[in-house]
Amino acid sequence: MKTNRPENPHQAALLRLLREGPRSRAELADIVAEPTGSTGSPVPLPGTVYPYPWRMSRSKLNAELDRLVDLGLAETDGLAASRGGRRSGRVRLSRDIRFAGIDIGATSVDVAVTDGELGVLGHVSEPCDIRLGPAHVLDRVRVLAGKLREQGLFTQLHGAGIGVPGPVSFAEGVPVVPPIMPGWDRYPMREMVSQELGCPAMLDNDVNIMALGERHAGVARQVDDFLLVKIGTGIGCGIVVDGKIYRGVSGSAGDIGHIQVDELGPVCACGNAGCLEAYFGGAALAAQALTAARSGASPYLAERLAAAGTLAAEDVAAAAAQGDAAAVQLIRDGGRRVGQVLAGLVSFFNPGLVIISGGVARLGHVLLAEIRSVVYRRSLPLATGNLPIVLSELEDTAGVVGAARLISDHVYSA
Amino acid sequence: MKTNRPENPHQAALLRLLREGPRSRAELADIVAEPTGSTGSPVPLPGTVYPYPWRMSRSKLNAELDRLVDLGLAETDGLAASRGGRRSGRVRLSRDIRFAGIDIGATSVDVAVTDGELGVLGHVSEPCDIRLGPAHVLDRVRVLAGKLREQGLFTQLHGAGIGVPGPVSFAEGVPVVPPIMPGWDRYPMREMVSQELGCPAMLDNDVNIMALGERHAGVARQVDDFLLVKIGTGIGCGIVVDGKIYRGVSGSAGDIGHIQVDELGPVCACGNAGCLEAYFGGAALAAQALTAARSGASPYLAERLAAAGTLAAEDVAAAAAQGDAAAVQLIRDGGRRVGQVLAGLVSFFNPGLVIISGGVARLGHVLLAEIRSVVYRRSLPLATGNLPIVLSELEDTAGVVGAARLISDHVYSA
Repeated sequence: MKTNRPENPHQAALLRLLREGPRSRAELADIVAEPTGSTGSPVPLPGTVYPYPWRMSRSKLNAELDRLVDLGLAETDGLAASRGGRRSGRVRLSRDIRFAGIDIGATSVDVAVTDGELGVLGHVSEPCDIRLGPAHVLDRVRVLAGKLREQGLFTQLHGAGIGVPGPVSFAEGVPVVPPIMPGWDRYPMREMVSQELGCPAMLDNDVNIMALGERHAGVARQVDDFLLVKIGTGIGCGIVVDGKIYRGVSGSAGDIGHIQVDELGPVCACGNAGCLEAYFGGAALAAQALTAARSGASPYLAERLAAAGTLAAEDVAAAAAQGDAAAVQLIRDGGRRVGQVLAGLVSFFNPGLVIISGGVARLGHVLLAEIRSVVYRRSLPLATGNLPIVLSELEDTAGVVGAARLISDHVYSA
Repeated sequence: MKTNRPENPHQAALLRLLREGPRSRAELADIVAEPTGSTGSPVPLPGTVYPYPWRMSRSKLNAELDRLVDLGLAETDGLAASRGGRRSGRVRLSRDIRFAGIDIGATSVDVAVTDGELGVLGHVSEPCDIRLGPAHVLDRVRVLAGKLREQGLFTQLHGAGIGVPGPVSFAEGVPVVPPIMPGWDRYPMREMVSQELGCPAMLDNDVNIMALGERHAGVARQVDDFLLVKIGTGIGCGIVVDGKIYRGVSGSAGDIGHIQVDELGPVCACGNAGCLEAYFGGAALAAQALTAARSGASPYLAERLAAAGTLAAEDVAAAAAQGDAAAVQLIRDGGRRVGQVLAGLVSFFNPGLVIISGGVARLGHVLLAEIRSVVYRRSLPLATGNLPIVLSELEDTAGVVGAARLISDHVYSA
């Protein structure tokens, strides 16, 4: 079964508008009105942030709305409260629209199904090692999506967004030389998911979809220019400019894990020395934990090591949560390195917000305090005067909501 | 005398189109045509890079063009070569349109007058110390503009763009706590120039107008996302995203002079340690030159010091041009520090081009080679695969052309 798409840019603009919630025809008419003032700008409703690429007369608006209802993309939704005259009919996105948001991490897969307004209807997750390769991961995506289908959450998807923890060619829908994803280089993931789920799909870097998620439903709802720093197995940064993901000319923008912190620092897996990831990536943190366990600096980590035979970055988080001094110090040191890199990026980019996210970010306020301390001390006063540095609000949901947002931008376009 | 402005967004879009050069009505109709294909995109002419905010039917197009002629903003320009049928009338911007581009540096003032297509008709320049304050500098701007008026280059300006070497509030048109501009904080420069020259004016940071100049007429003509690094008295960076200047949320984006190169480095005037400017800003380079002269490491600089009683950054350039080994080494060291900072920014921003510009950039290929060597070694391969790092093509003209471009964007809008 094929789902309908908008037929022209007017319809597309209306769908993006309705993604923010139901509206009365009178409200929509105010927003898309032909310019009347001398500046030529329409009057935006408070809190709305979308482009107005095509203006419409009221009769054109009503015709396009009726057509969207015919296409099964919108539906009527009763009458709005009176604004002094006749009550205006409300319109909303069709209740049948469904998007899948797929967030593939280094060690987990999340799949969610949303409605047309990107409200999450169901969300399933399981541990999954990305190094097992694309065929295995695709199979797990199929199984998880099947679970959501069995729950009756969808029969037909309008689109699927996918995030992976490595650089991608956005135009081609393939990962490109992803360092922590052996076997994935140029694997046609977008195409495979599209075939598997029978709907259009789009593929992006995991930090980009997390940034889109925070922009749509998290801490960045009102912010046009911001950075989302993910600290996990790798360290990456989503860059949002004017409300849109900035990908750079070859799609690698935000790849901050290999920015040099210290020329004399430890050798990194990339071959250079002193990279941020060589200090605070998942592998570096696990190695530091092992040292702390063996040296006796951390009784807690020594105990975990004896019990499990190995240590991971998450063990440092657990140790710090128990108040283990050596673990807290590891997090402080890492936070300082992240802060050093971020201080430069904040001076350069002058963002309106910095969001700290990812597995290690669950270390929480110790990490945040250290990052803030370095950035506020080191960046330009003009750039930090009104700069909040905060933890993610959505955590695990950011990726799937952002992936749904990504594909909805595509489906709601013409 | 008041100049006319476009009355609606259609006319504004046509003026921006004609800024690229004269067009036949048939060519314009192709560009602004209503969408006919399924993608809804108009067919862009090769090499054109401007938004198409409002599409027009052919009759609407002709009506708006006629109106622009009535307003004195456009004029007819003979007939185009036949494309197989009737020859189409050519249209161009009015030959009477004039913009002023004003580039205020730390040690010089440049004023140029351009036509509506931003071709430079006249350009005058003189040494001027910005520390003498805004009233003095404004007076020099008046005198230089007067010279161009006396040459018959203009009677009435349509607008003036201004660049200053420090952070500005673009919205308010004032410098904001500019470190090397004592007495300028919140001085209403935009308003004063506007009153003085009797036309609309806009104020921006000098690196931003240089980036606009390179984008309009220099090495960045075909590049949407790029960085322009200016190395002079201060060190700054213009950031262009999707063809437009990115200013950040408080207008300080690109202020890279105080990014930390080494925590144990020399103390900077800003109070922190190891900033890029503390290594390679104008004052740092002058101090290093003094040391080289006094220690006997540089016979050339010792001679200049004995003759002039003092040394400046330009003396290092002159010494290096003479093959003085100590001076070449100073430039190499500085280039390496610039490269270290740029390597991180290239990984972060993944630009399509990096332009090296400013007084010290005239040191030329020694500096360029050093910067390239560090960036190509240190940044991510994905980000440097197709990344040219080049010297400015326009040099002194970049600022004035970019300033004219800035104000023309404003004048050609509705």
